[in-house]
Amino acid sequence: MSTSTSALAIENQMMSENGVQQVELLNGVEDSYGGIIINMEEPCESEAFAFSLRASILQWKQQGKRAVWIKLPIQLVNLVEPSVKEGFRYHHAEPDYLMLVNWISDSTDTIPENASHRVGIGAFVVNKRREVLVVQENNGTFKGKGLWKFPTGVVNEGEDICMAAVREVKEETGIDTEFVEILAFRQSHRSFFTKSDLFFVCMLRPLTFDIQKQDTEIEAAKWMPFNEYAAQPFVQKHDAFSSVANVCLTKLETDYAGFSPIPRTTSSGKTSYLYFNSRDLNKP
Amino acid sequence: MSTSTSALAIENQMMSENGVQQVELLNGVEDSYGGIIINMEEPCESEAFAFSLRASILQWKQQGKRAVWIKLPIQLVNLVEPSVKEGFRYHHAEPDYLMLVNWISDSTDTIPENASHRVGIGAFVVNKRREVLVVQENNGTFKGKGLWKFPTGVVNEGEDICMAAVREVKEETGIDTEFVEILAFRQSHRSFFTKSDLFFVCMLRPLTFDIQKQDTEIEAAKWMPFNEYAAQPFVQKHDAFSSVANVCLTKLETDYAGFSPIPRTTSSGKTSYLYFNSRDLNKP
Repeated sequence: MSTSTSALAIENQMMSENGVQQVELLNGVEDSYGGIIINMEEPCESEAFAFSLRASILQWKQQGKRAVWIKLPIQLVNLVEPSVKEGFRYHHAEPDYLMLVNWISDSTDTIPENASHRVGIGAFVVNKRREVLVVQENNGTFKGKGLWKFPTGVVNEGEDICMAAVREVKEETGIDTEFVEILAFRQSHRSFFTKSDLFFVCMLRPLTFDIQKQDTEIEAAKWMPFNEYAAQPFVQKHDAFSSVANVCLTKLETDYAGFSPIPRTTSSGKTSYLYFNSRDLNKP
Repeated sequence: MSTSTSALAIENQMMSENGVQQVELLNGVEDSYGGIIINMEEPCESEAFAFSLRASILQWKQQGKRAVWIKLPIQLVNLVEPSVKEGFRYHHAEPDYLMLVNWISDSTDTIPENASHRVGIGAFVVNKRREVLVVQENNGTFKGKGLWKFPTGVVNEGEDICMAAVREVKEETGIDTEFVEILAFRQSHRSFFTKSDLFFVCMLRPLTFDIQKQDTEIEAAKWMPFNEYAAQPFVQKHDAFSSVANVCLTKLETDYAGFSPIPRTTSSGKTSYLYFNSRDLNKP
């Protein structure tokens, strides 16, 4: 159904009721960049929504607003098509909602970019006997290859890298750890459709030693002499793996300095971690 | 219109043609994780699509497929609602398309996470007279505050951090640079709706010195003595800024080692940059 038809239908219907046009405007919250955010929560008929949206945008344009955001829970999927027909484009989506945006001003479009990267960690957990905590996975790329690898995992939205490393080790192996530092990281591309990937190699100090492996993801977990880990053909064969093993070995044998997380207050008043070479910074 | 009604309508229509049910199955490409990816490109009527989708899923289930992905260009927005009604959820979206996914197997859902982080860079470009390249922006948080800051920008999907830093400096100031290393990085949360942010402070060596500022984003650009930059009240007042200035000063005055990018071949055969403290790694 075309937009003009649906709008006309509603207009006629509204005229017939009392001869006066009444349009219910949408409730929007202002952001600090001249934008309006509409959080749709209640079910709404598509044509009524399209009509309200059009009227609301006219008003916001007059008020000099620059952008309109619509957050649609997946239950309100019927409102996606009318939004796009009113000029909205997609911005980002999560399993349970879709965010659309429309730049309604004549000025240059300054809509911020969508998230572009997934972030992962690999945990280098080594005990005093130079044994490293390793796992074999039940699924994924390395399933069934017999490769012993560091515990790895995904850093969630809103989660600090240093916390994610401790969490993943605990989940996969039951071992409690203390975060030491980031030894290296890798950026790779098109890891998942067009998205890029940042993978942080984190060193952690074990606080407990008794392994309780998680069953659904982890086939096996153990402490393995570091040299045995590094000597695995797969690790030797692949640049990215052997380089990381080399960094870890350097850390074990010399005074290699990675980046440590230090909490800092940002200009917006939030606390966030700054990671840097704190050893070099604090040298006398 | 409910799903069952629309399916019935098509079924009736098809029966009436020649008395034999014919369903056009969707064309899908197999991925290496037991999934099927449907790239919809041609316009399609919503009800016919829903019917084909349902029949295709039945077949894929029989074949033991685990997940079905549908990529819908924004022009085919009419197919979003039928997809959701067939059990699909959103996975991610970009301005011009929406990706939906449906886990059709009885096994544990292992759909990968969506991208969670935006990645940005700040460029510390310093010449031999200890002057640092700084800009004032036309818009954004720091507009009109008189703050001289490092050139900053967003790392695009598919772009290497070290390339992004060189590109942003060139775009904003016209200065050609060579990437040296990452001095520090910050992770912050809820920077944009629920998304997180990684911001890398990159040191670059200037190769040219004559500033040609970009006009739409940059109000002013100049070389500024580093001490003047660091003495700005705003920089002094905010932990995150003063810490970064402190790291940069340490880099200028002592032998602070950041992380350098070294190209490495991953296990999937791609080349990607590994960033680590190459000074400590190569120490005799």
